[in-house]
Amino acid sequence: MKLAMIGLGKMGIEMAGRLLTAGHELTVYNRTMDKARVLESRGARVASSPSEAVAGAEAVLTSLLNDAAVEAVLFGRDGILESLPVGAVHAGLSTISIDLAKRLDQEHRQRSQAYVGAPVIGRPEAASEAKLIVIAGGSASSIARVQPLFDAFARITFTAGAQPWQASLFKLCCNFMIASMLETFGEAQALIRKAGSDPKDFVALMSEFWGSPIYRNYGSLIANRAYDPPGFTLIGGIKDMKLVLDAATGMTVPLPLASLIRDQMLSALAAGNADLDWASFTDTAARNAGLPFKRA
Amino acid sequence: MKLAMIGLGKMGIEMAGRLLTAGHELTVYNRTMDKARVLESRGARVASSPSEAVAGAEAVLTSLLNDAAVEAVLFGRDGILESLPVGAVHAGLSTISIDLAKRLDQEHRQRSQAYVGAPVIGRPEAASEAKLIVIAGGSASSIARVQPLFDAFARITFTAGAQPWQASLFKLCCNFMIASMLETFGEAQALIRKAGSDPKDFVALMSEFWGSPIYRNYGSLIANRAYDPPGFTLIGGIKDMKLVLDAATGMTVPLPLASLIRDQMLSALAAGNADLDWASFTDTAARNAGLPFKRA
Amino acid sequence: MKLAMIGLGKMGIEMAGRLLTAGHELTVYNRTMDKARVLESRGARVASSPSEAVAGAEAVLTSLLNDAAVEAVLFGRDGILESLPVGAVHAGLSTISIDLAKRLDQEHRQRSQAYVGAPVIGRPEAASEAKLIVIAGGSASSIARVQPLFDAFARITFTAGAQPWQASLFKLCCNFMIASMLETFGEAQALIRKAGSDPKDFVALMSEFWGSPIYRNYGSLIANRAYDPPGFTLIGGIKDMKLVLDAATGMTVPLPLASLIRDQMLSALAAGNADLDWASFTDTAARNAGLPFKRA
Amino acid sequence: MKLAMIGLGKMGIEMAGRLLTAGHELTVYNRTMDKARVLESRGARVASSPSEAVAGAEAVLTSLLNDAAVEAVLFGRDGILESLPVGAVHAGLSTISIDLAKRLDQEHRQRSQAYVGAPVIGRPEAASEAKLIVIAGGSASSIARVQPLFDAFARITFTAGAQPWQASLFKLCCNFMIASMLETFGEAQALIRKAGSDPKDFVALMSEFWGSPIYRNYGSLIANRAYDPPGFTLIGGIKDMKLVLDAATGMTVPLPLASLIRDQMLSALAAGNADLDWASFTDTAARNAGLPFKRA
Repeated sequence: MKLAMIGLGKMGIEMAGRLLTAGHELTVYNRTMDKARVLESRGARVASSPSEAVAGAEAVLTSLLNDAAVEAVLFGRDGILESLPVGAVHAGLSTISIDLAKRLDQEHRQRSQAYVGAPVIGRPEAASEAKLIVIAGGSASSIARVQPLFDAFARITFTAGAQPWQASLFKLCCNFMIASMLETFGEAQALIRKAGSDPKDFVALMSEFWGSPIYRNYGSLIANRAYDPPGFTLIGGIKDMKLVLDAATGMTVPLPLASLIRDQMLSALAAGNADLDWASFTDTAARNAGLPFKRA
Repeated sequence: MKLAMIGLGKMGIEMAGRLLTAGHELTVYNRTMDKARVLESRGARVASSPSEAVAGAEAVLTSLLNDAAVEAVLFGRDGILESLPVGAVHAGLSTISIDLAKRLDQEHRQRSQAYVGAPVIGRPEAASEAKLIVIAGGSASSIARVQPLFDAFARITFTAGAQPWQASLFKLCCNFMIASMLETFGEAQALIRKAGSDPKDFVALMSEFWGSPIYRNYGSLIANRAYDPPGFTLIGGIKDMKLVLDAATGMTVPLPLASLIRDQMLSALAAGNADLDWASFTDTAARNAGLPFKRA
Repeated sequence: MKLAMIGLGKMGIEMAGRLLTAGHELTVYNRTMDKARVLESRGARVASSPSEAVAGAEAVLTSLLNDAAVEAVLFGRDGILESLPVGAVHAGLSTISIDLAKRLDQEHRQRSQAYVGAPVIGRPEAASEAKLIVIAGGSASSIARVQPLFDAFARITFTAGAQPWQASLFKLCCNFMIASMLETFGEAQALIRKAGSDPKDFVALMSEFWGSPIYRNYGSLIANRAYDPPGFTLIGGIKDMKLVLDAATGMTVPLPLASLIRDQMLSALAAGNADLDWASFTDTAARNAGLPFKRA
Repeated sequence: MKLAMIGLGKMGIEMAGRLLTAGHELTVYNRTMDKARVLESRGARVASSPSEAVAGAEAVLTSLLNDAAVEAVLFGRDGILESLPVGAVHAGLSTISIDLAKRLDQEHRQRSQAYVGAPVIGRPEAASEAKLIVIAGGSASSIARVQPLFDAFARITFTAGAQPWQASLFKLCCNFMIASMLETFGEAQALIRKAGSDPKDFVALMSEFWGSPIYRNYGSLIANRAYDPPGFTLIGGIKDMKLVLDAATGMTVPLPLASLIRDQMLSALAAGNADLDWASFTDTAARNAGLPFKRA
């Protein structure tokens, strides 16, 4: 397929590499050009603007940081909206707000283009091994057209519904599930430390009990306070909790646990954890139990 | 070993069966005798009181419902405390309060007996397949003496610390981790239902993401509101959340998430869910989002 | 003084009346003209646009519903920003967001005009009796210039700081204090109803204890579920809690109690209370206790 | 009337003084005798045990610290239960648990004695000026008999219901209302401090708005962090919040705001505030906002 890929961050560059390997004809664009050059040697064409990148494409994938970056690429000067061909599909791989997802859907429809919400779960390494999870929202026919692209970097695709924004919601709920596990782990480990037990022993028990590497990995992060360098920053975590709370407010759904997490995160932010790993918001539970902080 | 087993509920009877299979010399006691008779045919001796059961035993295992049942078997008329031989070990397999675990430890010490806190994780079927998880608390030497007994019905034993009550704390924290997952799942599914998506799709995503059967099982329970018959009742869940909150209060550790769960459970109890599965406390999140209830 | 008054809702019209009585030269503007006509007979000049109203004025007072209405009057076509004379003062009497208050301050400064944040507490009747409370934020000299105007309809003016937005913050915190009292009253009355006592007896006790008519009035509203017609709607209450939470998030201050209230309000909104009095969000506490609803 | 008074703490001694002034025939008992001696000079008889104090009395008033002290005076060796005459009334002025209030009622009934729950609101100085508030629970006839005694030290008596424990519940709910006001004030002042405003200005506004000295007094305590010496200790506050939460759990009423306050108090306790004024639990809100502590 003739494709465009906008956004070559850690994740985007791996995805683009997989799409090239799969034999697609790819034009890439990134705000800073050096990243694009790497792909050029592998056969990608490098565009000098988003609008140029999507000219003539059957599909465009965007992998961008946040709502603002997506808005710039879509609606900004030289944005893709006006130059993407009629009938083409835009698959948005970023975690964005419900409101923006709804707006993208509408704007594309008005131009006889299709929008598929397709946020992914997993780290850049997972992309390079085709092990990501894709959450797709949109019409079945649109999803079917970009499914081969997802298969280039993902092990499985789940469908969230016929509306692109439903995929955003699933992704936000996934992050909420993780954040909730972190808060519980933080409270439990605070209790266990005050009881004189070793939180690492509790992490070992939880790893066995849940049978999930996520419990082992995050549990160990907290037990060791190994928050630097971050896998995902507290600032990013707060942004995602804000998105899920905004979505829930818009649908008149109280999420008391999400509210609690947001407040614990704000406390950690006030304590200076902004650029540490988001698991560091569990410092709040420890501090409120009167525990001193020891770094790994 | 010459053993006694007190308490032949669904779990206790499976454990006793495994101990017989392992070749131990076993005397059993249960408040109602018919359950004991089943084991008699397999070689167990049936005692008519707890004190008779432990006479001459090297170790006694107790598998009882709650603090009150443990207190009755220990301190009641014909309790085991006075007739258990000097040097014998009591392994308490029940989920009990921190305070009671401390008291048991002290009372046994005063009589030159040893107490090992050893609550288990898993269902009765897991016991019959030697797949339980044991959480052991106590002196290393005491735990070593009863380790072969645990191995008869458990796949692994984790150590929580040198104090028997630390094992109770680990078990309570484990239940708190599960309850927290339930609350999050409940809130997320409420949001997803209001968004017009199918919560079963979200459960499928979560099963894949966490790679844990616990997420699949409980997620499906909630999506289907399949709360009857219960695996573990709401009444039991409330009891355990009370125990963890009492333990935390005693150690001056605020657990805001445990408080939230307790309150959501009380709402579900007020709505009549007492004897439904404890996952049904997630009804509260759904009701507060204005969702109607549909049963599976 | 030569004044303009924009916004003639229930509150604005009373304020304008008092300003006329005090002898000021007043030009008024309202989106719908009939309200303005009433004041014309008392000597006010009626303008056909905000910009016309403020031409030549020494000060303008705005009494508008929310951020959107203020933005329309300031920045919209025929807005006041460009026609308000250099050196004039704008006193904003509405409850607006911190962000908008900051923007107004900046925009006026750039035009050598002054902005005073001046949200008021009290009901329209209090305005007609000169019994409102004004919360003023801004430079001391600017506040001094409009103080005589406030004295026309208020019994006292409190100063929140040298920044206009600090006055917004004080007003939002005041509403948070009231909402918190409502939630507590709701929870306590739920408990008292379930205990078989009469919540009206508890309201009588609280009225005596606090010595405040606010406890008596709101306590009785809740005891009688007298939520229709509303004094202030739930929709308005939710808006204000959102503003205080947004302000707090912007300053990295967790407000767990404000989060709790927001969630209780969302539950009441999901149950259909949008246009009832905001005290009706206490239905959530009653519902979660399993109490049936009886109307007064 | 021929009376006995048990418990001569700061409050009890003032009440006893008022009862003597009112002309009653009074026998007093206190664990430490020196306090009783002061009253002896004013005409009181001093007993050497609770049981001796109530022999022949028409009514006994108890003013004791907590459940344990009440249990000791009622059920302990030389307790009042067996020597209080048939037909006499026991008015319990302490803040006790619902469970103990129910037990006292039952035990007195079994002996054809009457029990009136009668916790008071106010400080010792208010007792000496007959300005306390009494909350009475019990049969109308029993309350009527001790009403003249209440009138000796109280300005008004409210009735909570025909059950003595309902008076305990009203008192606990009153303390919950105060604690909630404290938490809100703490959160709001944290926000206001971070906004660079002076919290004392906000306290002034709140005093005017609510028209209640309680807001002025507690608001100033928090603004000045004037927590030592305490009017009522954090330890006492935590005990009362535990009592209200226990009562609510027993009646299946979730009180999310009371849970929040309990957790904030535990954080303050973990930070070392045990013996400071209970208003100091608002330190938690300030600490979680990253604010440094300055003492008055």
